[in-house]
Amino acid sequence: MRVLISTIPFGQKDNTPLALLEEAGAEVVINPLERKFTEEDLVSLLPDFDVLIAGTEPLTRRVIEAATRLRFISRVGIGLDSVDLEAARDHSILVSYTPDAPAPAVAELTIGLMIDLLRAVQVSNHRMHNGIWHRYFGRRLTEVTIGLVGVGRIGSRVIRHLSGFKCQRILVNDIDQNITLPTHPSCDVEMVSKETLLQNSDVISLHVPLTGKTRNLIGTKEFEMMKADALVVNTARGGIVNEADLYDALEAGRVAGAAIDVFDKEPYSGRLEKLDQCLLTAHMGSMSVDCRSRMEREATEEAIRFISGSKLLSSVPDSEYLNQATFGIG
Amino acid sequence: MRVLISTIPFGQKDNTPLALLEEAGAEVVINPLERKFTEEDLVSLLPDFDVLIAGTEPLTRRVIEAATRLRFISRVGIGLDSVDLEAARDHSILVSYTPDAPAPAVAELTIGLMIDLLRAVQVSNHRMHNGIWHRYFGRRLTEVTIGLVGVGRIGSRVIRHLSGFKCQRILVNDIDQNITLPTHPSCDVEMVSKETLLQNSDVISLHVPLTGKTRNLIGTKEFEMMKADALVVNTARGGIVNEADLYDALEAGRVAGAAIDVFDKEPYSGRLEKLDQCLLTAHMGSMSVDCRSRMEREATEEAIRFISGSKLLSSVPDSEYLNQATFGIG
Repeated sequence: MRVLISTIPFGQKDNTPLALLEEAGAEVVINPLERKFTEEDLVSLLPDFDVLIAGTEPLTRRVIEAATRLRFISRVGIGLDSVDLEAARDHSILVSYTPDAPAPAVAELTIGLMIDLLRAVQVSNHRMHNGIWHRYFGRRLTEVTIGLVGVGRIGSRVIRHLSGFKCQRILVNDIDQNITLPTHPSCDVEMVSKETLLQNSDVISLHVPLTGKTRNLIGTKEFEMMKADALVVNTARGGIVNEADLYDALEAGRVAGAAIDVFDKEPYSGRLEKLDQCLLTAHMGSMSVDCRSRMEREATEEAIRFISGSKLLSSVPDSEYLNQATFGIG
Repeated sequence: MRVLISTIPFGQKDNTPLALLEEAGAEVVINPLERKFTEEDLVSLLPDFDVLIAGTEPLTRRVIEAATRLRFISRVGIGLDSVDLEAARDHSILVSYTPDAPAPAVAELTIGLMIDLLRAVQVSNHRMHNGIWHRYFGRRLTEVTIGLVGVGRIGSRVIRHLSGFKCQRILVNDIDQNITLPTHPSCDVEMVSKETLLQNSDVISLHVPLTGKTRNLIGTKEFEMMKADALVVNTARGGIVNEADLYDALEAGRVAGAAIDVFDKEPYSGRLEKLDQCLLTAHMGSMSVDCRSRMEREATEEAIRFISGSKLLSSVPDSEYLNQATFGIG
């Protein structure tokens, strides 16, 4: 079978996945363009392949209809906003993903970005590299109220890390109101409305998937509810925070700072680059050696199960199909 | 009594200390130069004052001999490398400090800087602000070995925070080999020799005071013992890591990165500014609103105890005098 690996880097730190595919007799092509595929790229390339080991490139209905030979998509990661699940089902293409693998790396980076924003680390670093010394005042995690939108695999890990700092007050809000709240002896974790969370949090961090329901979840209306010294962290997905509205809110001093790892269009290029108070990273949430290796290995093993006709172990559950059918793709 | 406050900012976020001094009838002057005093500044200014609420300016024997009216120094902070304790004692000047107040803020910043270095946050931020997208590979705290030199007030807090990340392996080395190691169920904390620590740690963080014994504790010889991908964090004191040697080690790729908050001469200006892989902050370790307020309040309350003839509560202990007598000032 012919396998296209679209996500890059792949097999860079650990080439086990490539060895496994070779052993399974697959004919493998790794993304030859060295950038994220566009819809056009996929329409022209994908028809030659049976299996796709996918990144976050747009697997739209148009791409899926063009990919007449494709039978299986194995997503390296958790987000499904890039995959039109209904279109895949309509064309009998199975979809699996690696929902647990990225969480540890994303949660750790989130804590680092929170401390950076609270202590103005990136602003000081930028000034120092330009010969400017200024001792910025900051706040500690213990002093502030943290608002987490989403307490699934990643949000609950963020809470666990915060407990190591004896963070006093954590407000949470989730799409699924029936979620069980993680408890920690050293933290007070409280489920509140989105409005209460936005109005009372010093640091607001997003840990929800991108769907039609969460697109533009944080825009001008929400920035206006926030404290003037609020800080926003997005390590979830681009599109959840409206980028144009964020620029305006930061520029106007309506909020104090933001750390953005994910963007509407990646690679990102845009006005946020101009703002020192906006810490920018290049979708590196899951990019720890261990988590990335685990994602690649899990996605590859699932692809090999498909190739060999074994039972799949991490098929995308029906709830995700229902989510897209209800709220749109994102 | 005439009180000089040399450390700045002071009373900026909380003016209680200034109100307390006024209430005590003190005549207060806050550093009028808006920068750290030099030895020359002090020789000319200090002779007019009875009490000094001090930052990290050089309180050398020459300064102390010139300050004929001075009876009391209240250090806002823990470090005593800037104070010639023997000279103070020779001139019957009492010295107090605030050893506990800065620890929480320094420990939190240290964790943030560790994550930044491990995930190349500052490098990505710099590139992104210049329109360059590159997804850097990083490592998680759980994956790496952390080496802590110094496990006193700050180092032991760093260990506590690391335990919230289920950090697997922490190597420690301390000046005082009889120190009791903090234990945490989720971490393996091991006391080792300095050499073992340097050779085996992925992240090396310093939490010792600057004395004649710790000056240049990390220089070329030590960088050569480290792993090629080692990362160094210094939130302790300038001079503990030799800046010229650090520049050479980073420049040559002998170590992978560093985060430096403290410098030989502050405000810092020098070659480290040229290196992206060197994260620089402006001595902001203790600069959280709560810790800074506590430091200022504690130092002021101690000064008021001195003024009113009450018993001092945080005199510098004899062990610090002995330390300087044995190893030099730093």
